[in-house]
Amino acid sequence: MSERFRFRVIHQDAHSDARVGVIETPHGTVETPNFMPVATQATVKAMDPRDLKEIGTQIIVSNTYHLHLRPGEEIIQEAGGLHKFMSWDGVILTDSGGFQVHSLADLRKVTPEGVQFQSHIDGKPIFFTPQKVLDIQHALGSDIFMPLDRPSPYPVTRNEAEEHLRITQRWLEQSVAYFPQLSGNHALFGIVQGSVFPDLRKRAVEHAIALDLDGYAIGGLALGEPKVEMQEITRLVLPLLPYDKPRYLMGVGYPEDLVMAIEHGADLFDCVVATRNARTGTLFTWTGRITIRNAPYARDFRPIDPDCSCYVCQTFTRAYLRHLFNAGEILAARLATYHSLAFFMQMMKEMRDAILADSFLDWKRAFLARYQVQRSVSPTPSGGST
Amino acid sequence: MSERFRFRVIHQDAHSDARVGVIETPHGTVETPNFMPVATQATVKAMDPRDLKEIGTQIIVSNTYHLHLRPGEEIIQEAGGLHKFMSWDGVILTDSGGFQVHSLADLRKVTPEGVQFQSHIDGKPIFFTPQKVLDIQHALGSDIFMPLDRPSPYPVTRNEAEEHLRITQRWLEQSVAYFPQLSGNHALFGIVQGSVFPDLRKRAVEHAIALDLDGYAIGGLALGEPKVEMQEITRLVLPLLPYDKPRYLMGVGYPEDLVMAIEHGADLFDCVVATRNARTGTLFTWTGRITIRNAPYARDFRPIDPDCSCYVCQTFTRAYLRHLFNAGEILAARLATYHSLAFFMQMMKEMRDAILADSFLDWKRAFLARYQVQRSVSPTPSGGST
Repeated sequence: MSERFRFRVIHQDAHSDARVGVIETPHGTVETPNFMPVATQATVKAMDPRDLKEIGTQIIVSNTYHLHLRPGEEIIQEAGGLHKFMSWDGVILTDSGGFQVHSLADLRKVTPEGVQFQSHIDGKPIFFTPQKVLDIQHALGSDIFMPLDRPSPYPVTRNEAEEHLRITQRWLEQSVAYFPQLSGNHALFGIVQGSVFPDLRKRAVEHAIALDLDGYAIGGLALGEPKVEMQEITRLVLPLLPYDKPRYLMGVGYPEDLVMAIEHGADLFDCVVATRNARTGTLFTWTGRITIRNAPYARDFRPIDPDCSCYVCQTFTRAYLRHLFNAGEILAARLATYHSLAFFMQMMKEMRDAILADSFLDWKRAFLARYQVQRSVSPTPSGGST
Repeated sequence: MSERFRFRVIHQDAHSDARVGVIETPHGTVETPNFMPVATQATVKAMDPRDLKEIGTQIIVSNTYHLHLRPGEEIIQEAGGLHKFMSWDGVILTDSGGFQVHSLADLRKVTPEGVQFQSHIDGKPIFFTPQKVLDIQHALGSDIFMPLDRPSPYPVTRNEAEEHLRITQRWLEQSVAYFPQLSGNHALFGIVQGSVFPDLRKRAVEHAIALDLDGYAIGGLALGEPKVEMQEITRLVLPLLPYDKPRYLMGVGYPEDLVMAIEHGADLFDCVVATRNARTGTLFTWTGRITIRNAPYARDFRPIDPDCSCYVCQTFTRAYLRHLFNAGEILAARLATYHSLAFFMQMMKEMRDAILADSFLDWKRAFLARYQVQRSVSPTPSGGST
C-alpha cells in the first residue's frame, strides 16, 4: 500500500515453516523473526534509545490509545513525530488502541461507527473510529499502523466472538478504505480476531486477505486462555496467511511460545513479559526464569546469565541485582529490563541464524532441553500498560 | 597515612583562595575542585557506572550506615569490595554513617564508646564505635574513610554543640589510633564539627590538624541553618585548614554554594540536591532551576539546557521529559538525574579551568549573572537517603 514498505522472505527453513525475512521501511529494516519491545508511553520502560540499539532492537511497538490520552498526538506531531519525540530512529509499529479501550477504559459503548469510552486517566469522553485511530497514528508518524479492532475477551461465547469479529471486519474495511487518503510512507496491517473458534478465525483470515494488507496480525490471544488453545489457534492461522506478507502474533509471549510460533512461520512479536517481569525481579535466562530477590542470590557473584553477552551480564552480579531490588533502587528496573530484553534479542538472532542454516529444529530441541519452562508468572493480559 | 593516597595543589587562583589540585588514590586520580555524586546504597540513583564515567565522574560517595544495614559489608567484601560489587572503578569515599545514625535510626543512645541504635529497616539493634565504622569501611574497600562523628542538629544550643564536639573529638582520636591497624591503601579524613559557633569550629580545626589526617571535612552544615550562617562558617573554617590537604565541604550544596566555597578554597563536595531534585522533576541549568512538569514545557522542544553538552540535552526535549514525568515513567528519573549530574560536572570542570587561567572571579561573576538563584526546593537535610 505504501511505496516504501516492503517485505520479502529471505530463506525458509528446510524442515519447518520457520522463515527469515526482511521488512524495509522509511526508518530502516527489520530482520524477521523479530521481537518488538513495548514502548506504550513513548518509552520502553527504564530503557533509553541507546540501550535499545545496543541490544540490537530494530523495531518497537507503541500505543495509539496511550499516546492519544497523554501527551496527545498534536504535541508529538509538533515535535516532529514519535520517532523524533522519543529519539528513536528505528522502526515503530503502533497498536490501534482497540485492545486498550476494551481492557483499560471505563464506560465503553461500541457502535457500528466506533467505540465511545472514558479516558482511564481523567475520565474525559473519547470516541474512537477506524478513521480516527489511523489519523492519530498518522500524526504520530509511525511506520506500521494497526486498524481499530474489537478483541474478544476470554472466555467468550461463540456468538459474542462472532459479533466482535463482525465489528472488527467492518472496521477493517473502513480502515482499508480510509488509509490511502493519508500521506506518507506507512503500512497498514490487518488484525485477525475470532477468539478460540477455528471457523471464526478462518473466516477472519479470508476476509483480511481479500483486503490485501501490508501484513497480518493474529490478535486476541494471550488473554488468559489455556496455552494449548493459544498454540492451536496459532498453528491454525499462521499457514493460512499469505506467505509473502509479515505475520505478527500480538501479545505473545514467553520464550517457549516464540519458538513454537516461529516454527510455524510467525515473523513479529510483542509482549510485556520481558519488561514487566524484569521490573519485579523475574529475569529470563537461557536456563529459564530466575527470581532475583530469592535468598540464594544474596551471595551469588555470577552474572544473571553466564551465557549472556549483554552489558549487564558482563558488568554486574546476581548479588548486586538482588541488593538493588531489595533496596528499591531504580537501577534495578533498568538493569533487569536491559538484560531480559537483550536475552529476547539474542534468542531471535540465534533463531534467525538457525533458520538460515536450515537447523531451526535442532536449535529448538537444544533450546527446550535447556530452558526450563515454568508456569506463567504474569497471568494477566499483557496489552494494557507495560 | 596510606602510601598511595596523595594530594597536591596544582595551581592557586591569583585573585582568590580557589585552587586546583589532584588527589591520587589506588583507584585513579581526582581533579579538584570536584563534586561527588551520592551513591548511598551502592548506586547513584538511576545512573549506571557507564553513565557516571560519561559525564566525567571521578569520585563518588557511598555510605557506611546504609551498606552495613543492607546488604551488609560481608557480602560486599565477598564480592571483592564495593568497587567490584557496584562495578565502579573510580574513587570511592565512604561516609561514616554518623549523620545517618542521628537522622534516620531509631532509639539512639550515645555513650563515650559509641552509638547504640536500631536499624531503620528492620529495627535490629546495632552498636557503632569509631573502630567498627572503620572496620566496615575497610571491608567495603573504599579509598577514603570518614570517622564516626556526632553531628549537631540545627538548631542546637552552644552547650549541646560543645558536648557533641567533645564526643566527635574523642571518637576522632580513637579513629586515628585504630586506623593504622587496617591493611591496604586507604585515607582517613577528619570531620570538623561545632555547628554555627565560631569558637567551637576553631577548636575543632586545631584538634583535627594536630592529628595529621589525610584530609579535612567540614561537617554539620546544610542542615537547615540560614544560608548566611552556612557561608560564614565555611569562610571561617576553610582558611584554617592545612593548605596541602584536601578540604571537603559535606552536604553542600546548590551551585551557588559550590561557587562560594570554591572561591574560599574548598576541594570536594557531595550533595543530594542534584539527584534528588532531578527525580522529582526539578532540573539544574546554567540559567537556574526549572520545574519540568510545568505546563509551558508541554510544547517546549528545546533541550533541558540549550548550553549543556550532555547526552540527554543532545538527544531529548523538555516536552519529552515533561511527558515522561507526567506519565510516571522510570526513564524520567534517569534522564533528569543524568542531566543534572552532568551539569554539576561541567560546572566543576569550568571552575577548574578558570582557576588554572587565574580567572575564577570573572567566571564567578559571569556565572552568577546568568544563574538565577531560587529558594531551596529541598529544605530538608540531605545526608539521609538520596
